[in-house]
Formats: sequence, C-alpha cells, structure tokens
Amino acid sequence: MSAPAAARNEAAPRGAVLPRLAPVAARMVLFGTGQVGSALLQRIVRVAPRTPEAAALQLVGVANTRRRIASRAALDPAGVLAQLSLAGACATDAEAVLGALGDEGPRIAIDASGSEGLAACHADWLARGIHVVSANKLGQGGPLSRWRAIRTAAAQSGARYGDAATVGAGLPLLRTLRALLAGGDRIEAIAGVLSGSLAWLCANHDGVRPFSARLREARALGYTEPDPREDLSGADVRRKLLILARSAGHALEESAVEVQSLVPAPLAELPLVESEQAYGMLDAPLRLRLHEAQQTGRRLRYVARFEPGRARVGLEALDTADPLAAGGGCDNRVAFWSERYSERPLLIQGPGAGAAVTAAALLDDVLQCLADGGR
Amino acid sequence: MSAPAAARNEAAPRGAVLPRLAPVAARMVLFGTGQVGSALLQRIVRVAPRTPEAAALQLVGVANTRRRIASRAALDPAGVLAQLSLAGACATDAEAVLGALGDEGPRIAIDASGSEGLAACHADWLARGIHVVSANKLGQGGPLSRWRAIRTAAAQSGARYGDAATVGAGLPLLRTLRALLAGGDRIEAIAGVLSGSLAWLCANHDGVRPFSARLREARALGYTEPDPREDLSGADVRRKLLILARSAGHALEESAVEVQSLVPAPLAELPLVESEQAYGMLDAPLRLRLHEAQQTGRRLRYVARFEPGRARVGLEALDTADPLAAGGGCDNRVAFWSERYSERPLLIQGPGAGAAVTAAALLDDVLQCLADGGR
Repeated sequence: MSAPAAARNEAAPRGAVLPRLAPVAARMVLFGTGQVGSALLQRIVRVAPRTPEAAALQLVGVANTRRRIASRAALDPAGVLAQLSLAGACATDAEAVLGALGDEGPRIAIDASGSEGLAACHADWLARGIHVVSANKLGQGGPLSRWRAIRTAAAQSGARYGDAATVGAGLPLLRTLRALLAGGDRIEAIAGVLSGSLAWLCANHDGVRPFSARLREARALGYTEPDPREDLSGADVRRKLLILARSAGHALEESAVEVQSLVPAPLAELPLVESEQAYGMLDAPLRLRLHEAQQTGRRLRYVARFEPGRARVGLEALDTADPLAAGGGCDNRVAFWSERYSERPLLIQGPGAGAAVTAAALLDDVLQCLADGGR
Repeated sequence: MSAPAAARNEAAPRGAVLPRLAPVAARMVLFGTGQVGSALLQRIVRVAPRTPEAAALQLVGVANTRRRIASRAALDPAGVLAQLSLAGACATDAEAVLGALGDEGPRIAIDASGSEGLAACHADWLARGIHVVSANKLGQGGPLSRWRAIRTAAAQSGARYGDAATVGAGLPLLRTLRALLAGGDRIEAIAGVLSGSLAWLCANHDGVRPFSARLREARALGYTEPDPREDLSGADVRRKLLILARSAGHALEESAVEVQSLVPAPLAELPLVESEQAYGMLDAPLRLRLHEAQQTGRRLRYVARFEPGRARVGLEALDTADPLAAGGGCDNRVAFWSERYSERPLLIQGPGAGAAVTAAALLDDVLQCLADGGR
C-alpha cells in the first residue's frame, strides 16, 4: 500500500493533463457568530490550505444581533470575531451587511443564526441571485408558504439554497432524499431520531436515576439548549421532520404535525429561573413510560414519523429490532422507506448535532454553490 | 395535510414560471441481460411514465455473451429481451453494439455484466466520450492501473463513470464519500459488512443448525451465487473494499488487501458438482469461531476494514456495541470515520444486494449523466 500522504491525491488522477480551472472567487457574508458561526470561521481557516476552493472564498461581512462589520476588502476569518467585538453596537440591519457582496460574481449569504427575521428574508435573497446557505431551520421548517417561496425563488433565479446543516448537521439525509427522487423513486415513509439531546436522554434514562437528574447532566454536558424545555417540547424535531417530508415531495403544513411535548403544562409555564427547580415534574410520567416499555422489552425513543396522511413527533416504545431502537450517544438516526426500499429501510446514522459537524455542513454547501458553477 | 397525489409535485415549486427544458435525448446500450440487466429494463418501463428523463432514453443496443441486437432506431425496453432471444447466436463483439450509439449527442454504455473483458474496456469507452454506467465491480475494483485509467479517461474526456451500483447496490456510499472529500474532509477509516449473503449467514449462524445447513438455505433463497464458495471466498468483498478505499482517496493495490477466505483449501479445490456434498467441511472451524465469540458475548460478522496502512477482509467477533454488529437480513452496513466523524462514525445501512436495487442504482447513474449536462 502506498504511504497515505502519496495516496491522498488518488481521487484526482495522476498523470492526467487537465485544464485545471482556478476556483471561482466568491464573496460571502455570515449572519450569526454563536457556536456554529464561530466553528465555521475556524473550519475555513483549517481547510483553506488544502482546499483551493475554500481558500478563494472572500468573507466581506459578519454580523450578530448586536454588531456588524461589512467590508469591500476581504476580512480575515481567523481574526474577524475579535474585530467584530470592537465594532460599535448597532441595530440589526441585514441589508447593510449584504451590501458588501456587491453585484457581481458569486455571492453567498450564510445564516448560522436561529433568527426568525433572517429566515423570512431567505426567499428575497435568493430572488436577488444570492446563494443562501442556512443552518437556520426556520426557513424551510417554518410555514409552508415560506418553504414554497424559498423553492420558487431558487428555481427562478438559479441561486442555490444550501440546507444540509438544517437536519442532521450534514448527515447525508436531504442529499439522499433528492437523489432517490431524481432516480424516479417515491418516498413512502420517514422515521427518525432527530434530536441529539433527546437521543442521549432516552438512551440514558434507565430507571437508575430519575429523568430530571439525567436532564441536569445533559445540560451540564452542553447537549441541551440553555433552557432544556426547548429540546423537550419537540418543536425543533417538528421543524426537522417538516424539512425532511417537504424535501421528499410532500406538502406539509406545520399544523399537520402532531407534537407530543415531554414538558407538562405547569413546567412549561414557569419562568426560566424557576424552571430548573421544577424538573422533578418530569420524573413521574417518564418513570411510568419507562416501566411500561421495560415490561415488554421495549426501548423508549423520541421519534419523528411521517407517512402520507400522518405526521407525528413524540415518545415511542420501540421493539429492540426496530431500526431506530439501536444507536447510542447523541447520534441521529433516520430511516427512509421508498418504492425501492420497501421491505427494509435505508438507514443513516451519525452525529447529527454539535457546532463542528454543523459548521462542516455549512462549508460543504458553500463549496457546492461554487461547484455548481457559481454566478 | 394535502392528499399525497397533490403533494408529490412539491419538490418542483408551484406557480413558478420556469424555462422547462426538454430532456436531452440520450442513446444507450446495455451489456448483460441477467437478473440485473433484466431488472433495469423493467425499471425503465415502470419509471418512464412519471420521469420524462427516463422516457427520453433511447435504447439502441443490447447484448449478452451469446447474442446481440444493435439498432439505429430505438428498441422497446419492454420487448427487447424477447427480441434478443430470437437473434442468432454470435461471438461477443462489444464494438458492434457500441456502433449503434453513433457519434453525436449523449451516449451511454451500461455494463450489467460481470465480464472481465468488458471491464477492461471501460477506460477506452470513456476516452471516446461515452458515459459508462457499471454494476461490474471488475472495473474500479480490479487492478489499480485499471482504476487509474478509468479515472484519468473520465477526467480528460468529461464523460461520467457511474459506479453507484458497484458497492451497496446504490446505497449512498460512494456519493457520500465524494461529498465529504469535496467539503474538505479526510477519510480516516472505513469498515463494512459488504456482502448481503455473508451478512445473512452470520446473522443466522446461531449454533442451532450447522453452518452448512444455513448455507444450503441461503442458496435456496437465492441469496448466494450459484456456487456459494464465491461468496465465502471474500473476493467480491475485497473488490468492494478496493472501490471504497480508492474513492476515498487512497491508492490501494489489490494485493494490499489481506483476505481471509471461509473456504478450506480442500473444499475450494473441488469441482462445483462435488462441492455441495462437502459443505460440511465448513462446520467445525465455524462452530469453533462461533463458540469463542459467544463466550465473550460477541457477534461474528464478515467485515471489510480499511485504515491507512492496513486493509483486510475476514470474519471478526464484534462487541454488541460495535456499529457493525447490529443490522439484520441481508443488509449492508458501512461505517466511515473521518476528520469530521472522528469519535462516532457516519453509518449507512440498507439492502445492498439484489437485482431490483442494483438496477435502480444503474438508472440513477444513467439519469445523473444527463443531469450533468449530457454531451
């Protein structure tokens, strides 16, 4: 076997005399400088030396809810966050940032925020010919009308909508769905464990310690949102199921998904500061569900499930042979049944949450915009 | 929720005024009319009414080892095998079939055979600008020099080499590897259960019945080759591992893969007709391996494994928590570790063998040739 270093280039044939095109220089702006946005900047810095396409990216704007920088000259991804922290506080103004993209060449807007206001702008950006790469699930996972507006704008302008980061943090879920459809397949059903935090909680909720103790543990490990009730409500899982089902060719209104929240109403109503003391309210009902599952040799999993005519998100007691019952850690796990995969599903599993993989998915999509020819 | 029928078109936006391009008419020839080739023809017939791209395909030649038809006018996929059976027997002559492709427009040669001679021609066809779509693993899974010739010819001519059917029968394995590489990722290791028949045999080899009885059962169910020693030798699994590792960017000679055949030498040497009576030779060594595995709570799986510096194919006793230990039936199951997926792997599982899914993978690749712009 050749040494790995020599072998790396094997994907590009040796000895071939190819017209190697210079990467298309693209200008891009980044909205959101939290964990995912920061990880994206770090990834660009790390990948650029070995990926000419990444090295050719020109970052010309960065913004979060309080500050922004926009520049005609390229910003340094390694130092831009320090630079941003020195900028004066100002109101959010996406247009002021987008202005730095100019009017020519490939232009990319990256949404690494969770902002409803920005998600509402995605279709408009696409209509103006700006590629949009999003980790923000409120774009395609929000109202059906918004999803349609995004798809229509992308089709009409030819700009690309990169969404790999919105479900499974870049696991090949949406890409696989689209490839199956392109090959003439029909998606009959989708079922998935789509939340890393709920996957971990279900796998570790073994009756030895109360659920509330596991929840505090998961929060301390950084697996949940700062307010874990957001995870437990199922709202985020619903958005992911909407994106999957819509991408599979099924028009699904938000209201068509039944969501079974794990949070009892009295707990849901408490202010954040008081809620942590009240996590114990979760214990009795979940102990009961666990007990019932264990008596029949089943496993509790928080599952999103779509089939034409029914979509739901909630806790299920699964047979150990169920494709979604295995898996551990914070892994996402999604099964697709289609005309082709009718008896046994196609299953994709892996880390589906976390800043590093989400950022990698964003950069995948940015590079894909350029591979498609840019503009 | 909308009715499914109305919802199907959702992937194409409604109300959008799109310049709908007529599908590019492509001419294609098919080599191999066994189970996979026949299933491909059936799939084209079934998918064409709802897939304009498939309907626009013009089949102009079909050949197997004994007969051929080549026609300037399009052949009917539904009736061509009956037509072929009436053709006079003749020697194999790929060029006589390829001639029907003419010189203009998109041209596609589909290799659904297992022919060494045809695999040796793939690079030449590509160099002539003919797209090649192959289920034949002897192209990219043969000598490294042949793999390089295929890659070089495709890169130089711009013709596409469709290989989704060669590993996992269209499971999104090679596509996923390439997408990871395109995003700047590095593949660190690959491990997989790559044989449907061996997956079934391992999952059902429980000590209740001897291995040889399970082997006869698998053969009767059509899970194995007519001579099951071909499955048990590991040669086919080696070819798949070579294709995966090479596609992941690692130059791997055939000889670099250690293969542990399950077939004892005395059994391997018997002629086919005598071999079936001698399957019992398999029982004692496999009973011992199973016993050892069971004593430590492990599961036997026939695994292909690659990491830089080592590639091997053989029986392994896996911990139940191992990503390859679960799964059932004839499912393939492949784990990728990369820079991005370093702690927990990306795992893809599903039916990875069988004429129907293999044929679907071939048609995916045919349609992809045209989606890329044809020629």
